[in-house]
Amino acid sequence: MLSIEKYQQIFVEYLEKYSAVKEPKNLYEPIEYILNLGGKRLRPVLTLMSTNIFNGDHKKALNAALSIEVFHNFSLVHDDIMDDAPLRRGKETVHEKWNINTGILSGDAMLILAYQLFENYDASTFQALAKLFSKTALEVCEGQQYDVDFETRQDVTISEYLKMIEYKTAVLVGAAMKMGAIVAEASSEDQNSIYNFGKNLGIAFQLQDDYLDAFGDPKMFGKQVGGDIIENKKTYLYLKALEFSNESDKLILEQLFSSNPEDISNKITLAKQIFESSGSAEATKKAIQDYTNMAFEVLNSLNISDEKKQLLKDFGIGLMNRTI
Amino acid sequence: MLSIEKYQQIFVEYLEKYSAVKEPKNLYEPIEYILNLGGKRLRPVLTLMSTNIFNGDHKKALNAALSIEVFHNFSLVHDDIMDDAPLRRGKETVHEKWNINTGILSGDAMLILAYQLFENYDASTFQALAKLFSKTALEVCEGQQYDVDFETRQDVTISEYLKMIEYKTAVLVGAAMKMGAIVAEASSEDQNSIYNFGKNLGIAFQLQDDYLDAFGDPKMFGKQVGGDIIENKKTYLYLKALEFSNESDKLILEQLFSSNPEDISNKITLAKQIFESSGSAEATKKAIQDYTNMAFEVLNSLNISDEKKQLLKDFGIGLMNRTI
Repeated sequence: MLSIEKYQQIFVEYLEKYSAVKEPKNLYEPIEYILNLGGKRLRPVLTLMSTNIFNGDHKKALNAALSIEVFHNFSLVHDDIMDDAPLRRGKETVHEKWNINTGILSGDAMLILAYQLFENYDASTFQALAKLFSKTALEVCEGQQYDVDFETRQDVTISEYLKMIEYKTAVLVGAAMKMGAIVAEASSEDQNSIYNFGKNLGIAFQLQDDYLDAFGDPKMFGKQVGGDIIENKKTYLYLKALEFSNESDKLILEQLFSSNPEDISNKITLAKQIFESSGSAEATKKAIQDYTNMAFEVLNSLNISDEKKQLLKDFGIGLMNRTI
Repeated sequence: MLSIEKYQQIFVEYLEKYSAVKEPKNLYEPIEYILNLGGKRLRPVLTLMSTNIFNGDHKKALNAALSIEVFHNFSLVHDDIMDDAPLRRGKETVHEKWNINTGILSGDAMLILAYQLFENYDASTFQALAKLFSKTALEVCEGQQYDVDFETRQDVTISEYLKMIEYKTAVLVGAAMKMGAIVAEASSEDQNSIYNFGKNLGIAFQLQDDYLDAFGDPKMFGKQVGGDIIENKKTYLYLKALEFSNESDKLILEQLFSSNPEDISNKITLAKQIFESSGSAEATKKAIQDYTNMAFEVLNSLNISDEKKQLLKDFGIGLMNRTI
């Protein structure tokens, strides 16, 4: 096993060799641009780690890891168009730097390129990877659609919200790890266990994102603190606060989350107060812990050494203790 | 072998069973809508035919045929957004009936669904189909990008134009037929021959489309006659007319194709006059015939009966004699 930083380095070196611009330039330059904007490379690192966990050679997993990263960036390009987002990782989004049509078409090409990256595997590995990929990619689309649908719905339940973040975010983390296990030819039990480990960790990760968006340290947090509150996003914090509030507090909260005041600081302060006083902030912290624990429990069923289990735990603990 | 109409009927029945709406509805309803707008189902029919040509069971090719049709419709949904097209087969386009975001996301899901349709094939057939599909789909994206690029370029050559229509249109016809051959487990020589037959026929088909757009019978032609002229599209007719014209006629043509007059009928009449007087109309008809003949020549190398070769020829002749 290598360190996270080492896996990152190996992956980024591989990525840099891959992303040469081909013709037509207007199709491939945006792809090279978005793939080289940086980021933690969390998903591909998990694929490489997972291969080593199951005694495979992480070099064999590089194409699968790259496929996951190309797909993730495809979804960012198309989501940024849908969200009308001007910035991604502090730089212009693809549709902003070029135009919407370029964003659509380059994104489409990335989705196809992600499948092509499986082509060097033997036929049965190819089929296993591509099947998992298709199932996961379709769930990511469904998750994105639920997210869009929820914007205009007032009756979103906690379980619907959890399903949405599971599909939109968590299944890709699970799939990244399962792909590593497939490449390492792990047993199907181990493949499913590592998928569930990743998926639960992914849900915890997204809930943590919701929490940090409101309560993160402005100096450390990458995005604008309170961004979800400003945009009236129905996050776990909001839905739990609604659940825990009496009718009059519920009304205040609903009104707050349908307003778009010029002075945002009051809105953020008030929302955070309700999140805390209602017990929602605590409940969110508990949910993060619960999903992390669920991920750790899955580890018990894995046929790997205790040292490796500890490594995966340390990785999970590291993710959950992040302040950014 | 069955009749074209019978293949169409078998395909449409299979399609109707497939396109049930799942959750979330806002993702899957647009997919059902576009898939059921009708059309000639040319590509899937070719897949089924091709399987029978190589002594395979066309029922085994239904999923491959459906994949081709789902992909074709994916490209229509995204192209219609890029072209800002309000109508498709006389009905509202997806982004017009819903919105652009729905068009993007439902299109993405269709691209994934097209891959999923290969999953019931055994691993080596799956890999062969998915590899061909990815290569073809990427070429279609590249062709679309060249088409977009050509809009703002004044120096497009005939060979660049031919490459563009090959990628944007013809390779999918070739791939549709090759998939039929793959399912039938034809030799790789036969697979490549039928691909080249389909590709050449696809180029002839697109050149015919260019020709009919200007010279088709308004009563028979599905679209507005002269549509390409109104939109200043640099088709084969236009590029050949430029090639054949002296400097002063060239200037007139270039000016005509950068104008957007309110009275379009004069513009169309003048353009068609130049297409005919320059010899471009004749040259286009000849190119259609040449590519059709190239397709037919490929047939000679196929290991199939003369009756089957004649069927494929009749199909090609039928396509080229169409007035719509």
